[in-house]
Amino acid sequence: MGLVPFLDLASVAVFALTGALVASRAQLDVVGFIFVAALTALGGGTLRDVMLGREPVWIGQPLLLLVAAVAAVVVFFGAHRLESRYKALEWLDAFALAVAVPAGVGVAFAEGLGWPVVLVMGMVTGCMGGLMRDVVCNEVPLVLKQGELYVTCAFLGALVAVVLVALGMPAGVALAFCAGVVMVLRAGSLALGWRLPVYRARAPRAETRKRD
Amino acid sequence: MGLVPFLDLASVAVFALTGALVASRAQLDVVGFIFVAALTALGGGTLRDVMLGREPVWIGQPLLLLVAAVAAVVVFFGAHRLESRYKALEWLDAFALAVAVPAGVGVAFAEGLGWPVVLVMGMVTGCMGGLMRDVVCNEVPLVLKQGELYVTCAFLGALVAVVLVALGMPAGVALAFCAGVVMVLRAGSLALGWRLPVYRARAPRAETRKRD
Amino acid sequence: MGLVPFLDLASVAVFALTGALVASRAQLDVVGFIFVAALTALGGGTLRDVMLGREPVWIGQPLLLLVAAVAAVVVFFGAHRLESRYKALEWLDAFALAVAVPAGVGVAFAEGLGWPVVLVMGMVTGCMGGLMRDVVCNEVPLVLKQGELYVTCAFLGALVAVVLVALGMPAGVALAFCAGVVMVLRAGSLALGWRLPVYRARAPRAETRKRD
Repeated sequence: MGLVPFLDLASVAVFALTGALVASRAQLDVVGFIFVAALTALGGGTLRDVMLGREPVWIGQPLLLLVAAVAAVVVFFGAHRLESRYKALEWLDAFALAVAVPAGVGVAFAEGLGWPVVLVMGMVTGCMGGLMRDVVCNEVPLVLKQGELYVTCAFLGALVAVVLVALGMPAGVALAFCAGVVMVLRAGSLALGWRLPVYRARAPRAETRKRD
Repeated sequence: MGLVPFLDLASVAVFALTGALVASRAQLDVVGFIFVAALTALGGGTLRDVMLGREPVWIGQPLLLLVAAVAAVVVFFGAHRLESRYKALEWLDAFALAVAVPAGVGVAFAEGLGWPVVLVMGMVTGCMGGLMRDVVCNEVPLVLKQGELYVTCAFLGALVAVVLVALGMPAGVALAFCAGVVMVLRAGSLALGWRLPVYRARAPRAETRKRD
Repeated sequence: MGLVPFLDLASVAVFALTGALVASRAQLDVVGFIFVAALTALGGGTLRDVMLGREPVWIGQPLLLLVAAVAAVVVFFGAHRLESRYKALEWLDAFALAVAVPAGVGVAFAEGLGWPVVLVMGMVTGCMGGLMRDVVCNEVPLVLKQGELYVTCAFLGALVAVVLVALGMPAGVALAFCAGVVMVLRAGSLALGWRLPVYRARAPRAETRKRD
């Protein structure tokens, strides 16, 4: 199994778990769990593939659908054992982001796209599945939560991969660095409160008064 | 007219009515009605076609756009005659689901796809248009309403079609069974309260105490 | 630079500003600004291109991504100078709509599509980016705001272009008229309160009483 297919599989499994956790917060039945899990797990990659004119991966590899369904069923029957489903959701989502971003970047490298498009594909694959999950289930999108790094992690991770490949590093190694950067930044944001300054409407600057 | 084009046409007309009813709840003007009606009526099938690399049906058959627009105008001028617009919405939506799921399944059969992808295409065609309608208009998605069968109806209907075709039944007949199963299950959920058990967070199991 | 590429570029720049203004209302960080700006700026055109089986424009012209990012950064550092960010948002959005609709119509003309599909492509390109922005950021979609012309402006502008071309006018001139119609109608709605009658649930008609 090549690196990108493996990353795809891993991100499908972990994003499916997060989708099912959100479904548990919405108290759906088991088919609802599978629906949200599959949407989350496959949404980002499907969007990437459709924009690139490729067939969505899961059409050729229906195993991915099965993986998402199994993850949903596991959560349906097992989530009550978690102490905090929301904390589990955040950390699983962080891990899924850290594998999905390099998966998107890897596909874009393989298609020979320019670096700005590579960055976008990394961000789309990493962020859009979770965004669909949150929009559909009416949660505040994790992607846009104030005072946390999220899109930023995806962006910087993809940027690191682009730079390393430009410096001559093999793509596989660069993707591993990409995953590491995403995970470290997101973990730092969750555990240590790392963040960028957010926009705050400031009062218009007072005019400089001249002493007369 | 073949069976799948007919199912597409029927689901467009009925989903357009449901879109227009939601637009009436949002008090839009007549162009807003047409917009929401067309989004609802064509959203699921368009998503199916884009994922399969096909041209969305309505590009080749703009008649479908006209049908959606006419349905929207009819509702704009006629909805006040309904006793309960929400009840009408639910039942029309059930009927649309029952024709859209076999339409999606039929297209997937015609493309010669494997059964897991057939299931997904039935669910996407049936559920995603209504989901887009509800997300855009800020309604609680019918798809995810607690304590009702919805995605489950689509799933089981598609499953019945797949099983019957695998047993050697002609696709056309299997699609009719599919429509029937979806309609009966959804009607049973609406009228009789049929449902699957939903997820409930349970307290962590008390540890088994050993007598000492 | 042809007319349609120019319209695409202009609508990207202006829609990106509106996306960034919405991001400022959600108090995101600068990467969040870029994310929402790019989604808004490129969402409608990307959807149009995907439905037409074309490669999204920004894949071939990553300059558009840069334009969106620059617009986002400008707003991040400059928005506090605006007296009313919401007013700026509405008017920039109106201007973006007035360039995006003809961009969509122009692409559909170039593809030789029938007039109903041309109308849809104009409306999709004009309205869907802003709709994605509002859905993702949990704002009431401008597209669906009660008592305002919005989709209607896009629809009538596209209709004018279709009619003028059918009457033999060169496409470029027709697109200019299209832009003008959209801008005038939207401005009239914002500044002067122009609107269409909205749907209101009326009580069932009282039965005609016969004097006895």
